[in-house]
Amino acid sequence: MDHSNTRIGIIGLGVLGGSYAEALHYAGYEHIIGVDIDEASIETAKSLGWIEEGSSDPKILSDCDIVISCLYPGVFVQWIKDNQSVLKSGALLSDVTGVKRVVVEKISQELRPDIEFIACHPMAGKEFKGIKYADAGRFQAANFIIVPTEHSSEQAIETMRTLAEEMHFKTITCLTPEEHDKMISYLSQLTHVIAVSLMNANDNDSLALYTGDSFRDLTRIAKINEEMWPELFILNKDYLIHDIDQFVQELHDFRDLVQTEDVEGMKKKMISSTTRRALFDRK
Amino acid sequence: MDHSNTRIGIIGLGVLGGSYAEALHYAGYEHIIGVDIDEASIETAKSLGWIEEGSSDPKILSDCDIVISCLYPGVFVQWIKDNQSVLKSGALLSDVTGVKRVVVEKISQELRPDIEFIACHPMAGKEFKGIKYADAGRFQAANFIIVPTEHSSEQAIETMRTLAEEMHFKTITCLTPEEHDKMISYLSQLTHVIAVSLMNANDNDSLALYTGDSFRDLTRIAKINEEMWPELFILNKDYLIHDIDQFVQELHDFRDLVQTEDVEGMKKKMISSTTRRALFDRK
Repeated sequence: MDHSNTRIGIIGLGVLGGSYAEALHYAGYEHIIGVDIDEASIETAKSLGWIEEGSSDPKILSDCDIVISCLYPGVFVQWIKDNQSVLKSGALLSDVTGVKRVVVEKISQELRPDIEFIACHPMAGKEFKGIKYADAGRFQAANFIIVPTEHSSEQAIETMRTLAEEMHFKTITCLTPEEHDKMISYLSQLTHVIAVSLMNANDNDSLALYTGDSFRDLTRIAKINEEMWPELFILNKDYLIHDIDQFVQELHDFRDLVQTEDVEGMKKKMISSTTRRALFDRK
Repeated sequence: MDHSNTRIGIIGLGVLGGSYAEALHYAGYEHIIGVDIDEASIETAKSLGWIEEGSSDPKILSDCDIVISCLYPGVFVQWIKDNQSVLKSGALLSDVTGVKRVVVEKISQELRPDIEFIACHPMAGKEFKGIKYADAGRFQAANFIIVPTEHSSEQAIETMRTLAEEMHFKTITCLTPEEHDKMISYLSQLTHVIAVSLMNANDNDSLALYTGDSFRDLTRIAKINEEMWPELFILNKDYLIHDIDQFVQELHDFRDLVQTEDVEGMKKKMISSTTRRALFDRK
């Protein structure tokens, strides 16, 4: 894309919006515009050279060709309701939210017909909030998922693919909103529910002394951004509840094998998990 | 300890027994004797210089001052029944098993009164089996737990502490058999049950494409030695079943918060898990 003339707006300069600004700046884009309600975040982004200009007033986005919301889902939808009139006709709108069916549905209900929305999910979350934790380097190990609908244009998909390539994401793939939400429920949301519940299931702090790598690995994501995740869970409630139930059923089955001292049954489960886990090794 | 005159016997040259032989060899012990039913493992240990001599015949241990069983719990107890007559009077016996109450009880029932048993648990397990995966370097990140009873001598405890120091374990602590088994149930056994169950809860292999670090971290230990773990689970069944039930209760509570869209309730759980997890960061 034309690095000198394309104007990219970023709404929300938090940990992810900040990382986007950084990555796009180093990709060579000369006009990156930041919007945030927090003036200090704008100043930080400016002083680092990641954005050309910034403001708390959305009007600053009026010339942008591409506008990327880095807001939480509900705030994003509300922002569009309140501020979409400032965007220029023909602009491309994208986002970074961790759930897609609801967001795609609500934005398509609200959005002006002369603006196209193409949903994206950069799987590069972090437990910390704010621009000071922004780090575009993490994108190199992260998946970027484009989530088109049957109304999405090829051009919109290709634009986001190009941006993701320029931000050096490891893999770039397309999923439907349903496929995305189903996948994210099992691979990300369920794992966070497990880590939080495991951490809360025992209040004996002296155990920390004996902690090994396996417990640390399992609970790393128990440090969690409590402002963001409850909303993501609720917006994906059907799939998440289904996955929790399926997992609890597996736990019950395993508990029964322990209770009845069924060595062969446990071995079968372990051989299955060993085999399946090998498929998930980093390629 | 006297590196030139102390004779140390190791029963079972698998991944852990091999690592012990390696670590004690590099600590300077000149007389390390290996016993294994597999001649190839003995040859490997010999060719690496880790053992001075080895045999499938337990009689080779008759002059050993310290004998360390690196066998699974049931095999260890049977080995003592069958072969303890070869050990010399006054020898110190230790082990590496991952559960302690049953092992300590059974060995103390079986063992000759002129031999002292001091249970130990080097928390340095691995999913792979066999001497070719032996690696004493892992001990530097691992906890070593000495598990004395009221009958244990100070000298036995100090001897094992010295060996653990010489093998460069990170931390060395003492727990009673009950404390050990309770701790290991929550920090290690429950985490393995969770990883295995999570891996088995979904058979959609195409998800591997989208796997991020959090899922990989949570399921790393789903690759598991199915010959060893069922026995460890059964021998610690009371604590493990209790911990599975407590964890499932936490999952149920969290599921209800999602179902009822209780944002404040979820936030509380997340703040609690974030706070507790910080205690478990690597010091």
